[in-house]
Amino acid sequence: MEIESFLKKSEGNWISMRSGHSLAFKQFEEVISNLNIKILNANDYRIINFLDKSNFKKKKPICPFEIKWEGNSNWQEGNAAKELSGSSLLIPIPHSSNKGIILRSLGYAEKIEAISNFNFTSDGTMILSTEYSQTIAEERIWFINKNVRCRSSVIKSIDSKGIFQTSFASEIRCIS
Amino acid sequence: MEIESFLKKSEGNWISMRSGHSLAFKQFEEVISNLNIKILNANDYRIINFLDKSNFKKKKPICPFEIKWEGNSNWQEGNAAKELSGSSLLIPIPHSSNKGIILRSLGYAEKIEAISNFNFTSDGTMILSTEYSQTIAEERIWFINKNVRCRSSVIKSIDSKGIFQTSFASEIRCIS
Repeated sequence: MEIESFLKKSEGNWISMRSGHSLAFKQFEEVISNLNIKILNANDYRIINFLDKSNFKKKKPICPFEIKWEGNSNWQEGNAAKELSGSSLLIPIPHSSNKGIILRSLGYAEKIEAISNFNFTSDGTMILSTEYSQTIAEERIWFINKNVRCRSSVIKSIDSKGIFQTSFASEIRCIS
Repeated sequence: MEIESFLKKSEGNWISMRSGHSLAFKQFEEVISNLNIKILNANDYRIINFLDKSNFKKKKPICPFEIKWEGNSNWQEGNAAKELSGSSLLIPIPHSSNKGIILRSLGYAEKIEAISNFNFTSDGTMILSTEYSQTIAEERIWFINKNVRCRSSVIKSIDSKGIFQTSFASEIRCIS
């Protein structure tokens, strides 16, 4: 399973440098965050509860995981830099060796439960596509080496005609 | 030839929003540039002269092109924002339908003549890899739709152990 080895390489603590591009306004956003990615046991009660409430009750997840993040954006709200922190459970359910879906307790483009389709390209890049209520997000994640991951995203309107934002993150493993 | 259709889609004027990430210092750079990509005739004297001086004199290029750029970076040198402008000739010489080399009159990571290897992944992303005197640059370019291209780059040390910089550009076609 390609998803399994990809997630095992992703486990750990990362510092993320993320740039957001607002295409219409030509504005840049800069965010530095700490990320923690942890693979959970398939018997973790949060995973069982989440699956129980879903339409995928009888499916067998592979490497369910949790992402926690804590960051600071330079986009000001009032006088303070916007604080960004949260966590999300992600439950991969493969359809084949390199394709499937991931259930998310909290989405990326919209902060609601979401289902992403994933697949891997010929060079091992993971592509995630998620349809939300108003937007579609496409994310790409690839490794430069075992300690540096890159992640790009595009957020489009639901009819795919407008592109709201692109972003790019350099994720550097914290070695302590 | 995948390179031919990719370059034909790339022709025209673009506005580029580019973010650079210096991983060691956690510094962001922001650059807005105007790009012009123009496919040249294979008989253009500059192409013929360039090939004549190279080791690829007898090779048949496909869609040689010129990139011109003019931009402004927020990385200050003295009191003025750094001005970035230039142009480069690029001469693709395919080895097969989706692989080959591109001769460049001016490189990306180092401003010297360079030879890039290119190939296309299963989802149509062009990957360019260029070995310079001190660094290796890997660039990825893909289309979101016909009017938006994304370009990421990684600049590594020649032994691939250190990563100096990553960058990401959102390129938006100017429609006038």
